[in-house]
Amino acid sequence: MINNFVEYRGLIERKLTEFLAEESYRSKSLNNTFTYSLYNPINYVMSGGGKRIRPILVLLACEAFGGKAQDAINAAIAVEILHNFTLVHDDIMDNASTRRGKETVHQKWDVNSAILVGDELIGLSYRSLILSNTSRIASVVKVFTDGVIEVCEGQAMDKEFETRDEVSIYDYIIMIRKKTAELLKTSAVIGAIIGGSSDEEVKKISVYAENVGLAFQIQDDLLDIIANENEFGKKIGGDIVERKKSYLYTKALELLQGSKKNEFIKCYSSNVTNGENVSKIINVYNELCVIETARNEIKRLTAVANKSLDCIKDNHFRLKLEQFSDMLLNRNY
Amino acid sequence: MINNFVEYRGLIERKLTEFLAEESYRSKSLNNTFTYSLYNPINYVMSGGGKRIRPILVLLACEAFGGKAQDAINAAIAVEILHNFTLVHDDIMDNASTRRGKETVHQKWDVNSAILVGDELIGLSYRSLILSNTSRIASVVKVFTDGVIEVCEGQAMDKEFETRDEVSIYDYIIMIRKKTAELLKTSAVIGAIIGGSSDEEVKKISVYAENVGLAFQIQDDLLDIIANENEFGKKIGGDIVERKKSYLYTKALELLQGSKKNEFIKCYSSNVTNGENVSKIINVYNELCVIETARNEIKRLTAVANKSLDCIKDNHFRLKLEQFSDMLLNRNY
Repeated sequence: MINNFVEYRGLIERKLTEFLAEESYRSKSLNNTFTYSLYNPINYVMSGGGKRIRPILVLLACEAFGGKAQDAINAAIAVEILHNFTLVHDDIMDNASTRRGKETVHQKWDVNSAILVGDELIGLSYRSLILSNTSRIASVVKVFTDGVIEVCEGQAMDKEFETRDEVSIYDYIIMIRKKTAELLKTSAVIGAIIGGSSDEEVKKISVYAENVGLAFQIQDDLLDIIANENEFGKKIGGDIVERKKSYLYTKALELLQGSKKNEFIKCYSSNVTNGENVSKIINVYNELCVIETARNEIKRLTAVANKSLDCIKDNHFRLKLEQFSDMLLNRNY
Repeated sequence: MINNFVEYRGLIERKLTEFLAEESYRSKSLNNTFTYSLYNPINYVMSGGGKRIRPILVLLACEAFGGKAQDAINAAIAVEILHNFTLVHDDIMDNASTRRGKETVHQKWDVNSAILVGDELIGLSYRSLILSNTSRIASVVKVFTDGVIEVCEGQAMDKEFETRDEVSIYDYIIMIRKKTAELLKTSAVIGAIIGGSSDEEVKKISVYAENVGLAFQIQDDLLDIIANENEFGKKIGGDIVERKKSYLYTKALELLQGSKKNEFIKCYSSNVTNGENVSKIINVYNELCVIETARNEIKRLTAVANKSLDCIKDNHFRLKLEQFSDMLLNRNY
């Protein structure tokens, strides 16, 4: 049975709304016309839905080690705000016109606004983070900062890969570890620290979150091909058009040889972004069964993740974390 | 006599070089080709000179309240890294092709790289900050975060003003307080906290740094008109071309009336970026003596700043802080 974590989402939405309302009010307090160019898009992007996966993980990890969700709620929304910074800036770089079925910030406003909105979101994320009720704030800030740096480097690698044809699965895993898994790790570790975990327990929950994160990104790569466009909120085959080096691409490359490989590379790296080329690529994926391989890899990683939960004595919360990884594994958008 | 703070600059350059070398090495450690798109421009921009004013202020404030420069050096370079983030992103937004006489990051690489370089610099700035040797790290992180947020909002206001004709001196001061003075305040306050200051002393040094910051920005606005292009590293009249609402513009607007005012607004807001229009604007500034008014305002603010140093018992460091504000007041670039 899949838990949708409705109660956590409610807590997160309420706190996010409250925090942003306070900040919007503050930014207006000197003169009503000021910084509308920041707070209109910030409120737009932060209220744009999203699965709130990372803040849920913060709260779950906190509770799993004996803390109260309330003590970690500021850190939880900090991670969500930080995640939204990455979306706003990544969408500029990826030339994405929609996100979650709505116009992206740089599309609805302009690139300059979107740059500044992302920057401000980083600042706001730290502001919320340091409101956390914990005696271990220095550790929390350090882990969060590591997350910021890794996620930027992951995005840099992702962009670098777009101009490279040969990207190995090994390179790909390093990239998604930074770009995606790191922020889930950050979420779990911060929650665990606030919850009162030991160093040993932090290591275990890291392994859990990192593997969930890797599975999550491979699932995302998969959804680029197999998702329902309306549910997914993005165009199908977008990764192919953007020449993203996805799990499917790097896996296909590993399996192909000789002229077939060259043809595949040529087709993927061509500037033609029409439907025909996208279909050709998807056909290769089907022939090589890489979609099935991706599904199996997601299952394997999720099993590794769940196994590292054995350190959690509380059955109730261990089960919840298992349900959390199952939810990510079985999502369609 | 102007103190150039050579010994402080030496300390700052050494620490910056060491910190960035470590981070560049770390980013390469998995594979030599990774994240070159980040660290090449980061090393380029951070070694691009700059006056290192903010980190000098961190060190001075720390020592003024009894601390050792060595305890504040990580915070000092954190502020410098943060400042460089603002330059990289502002240069994109302002379409600036040169900075300190060198190509800007988005010009030499591209906009996407420059966005990501700025983001990574924020992360790196926090990483350096939390290495500070202080028991008051939570306060330090809070002040720093306030700085990040204010500086983004200041930039947002600055951009908003570009599309507005009527900007009052009052609006202008709010904007430069956020965009420029805040980060100098952040520098001084963080230094003071690490140095062991009381709350009362923090307030005093805030007043000092904020007024120095306001004077500094007005001087910057002035240099846009009166500087030597080679020394300044930017094109003369750049603010006019960009329709920046500078001290000179807002002051002129305050003094003009009727058709002369309308004509001035029209000339300033026109899309023509030729030399003739720039000369016309400068002529109005000369007629209205706003350049002289700006000079007097800088002197007044500097006097206010220096007066609030009376809380510093140590004559040696009080004098150094006075020399610091004098240095900024008398600079030509």
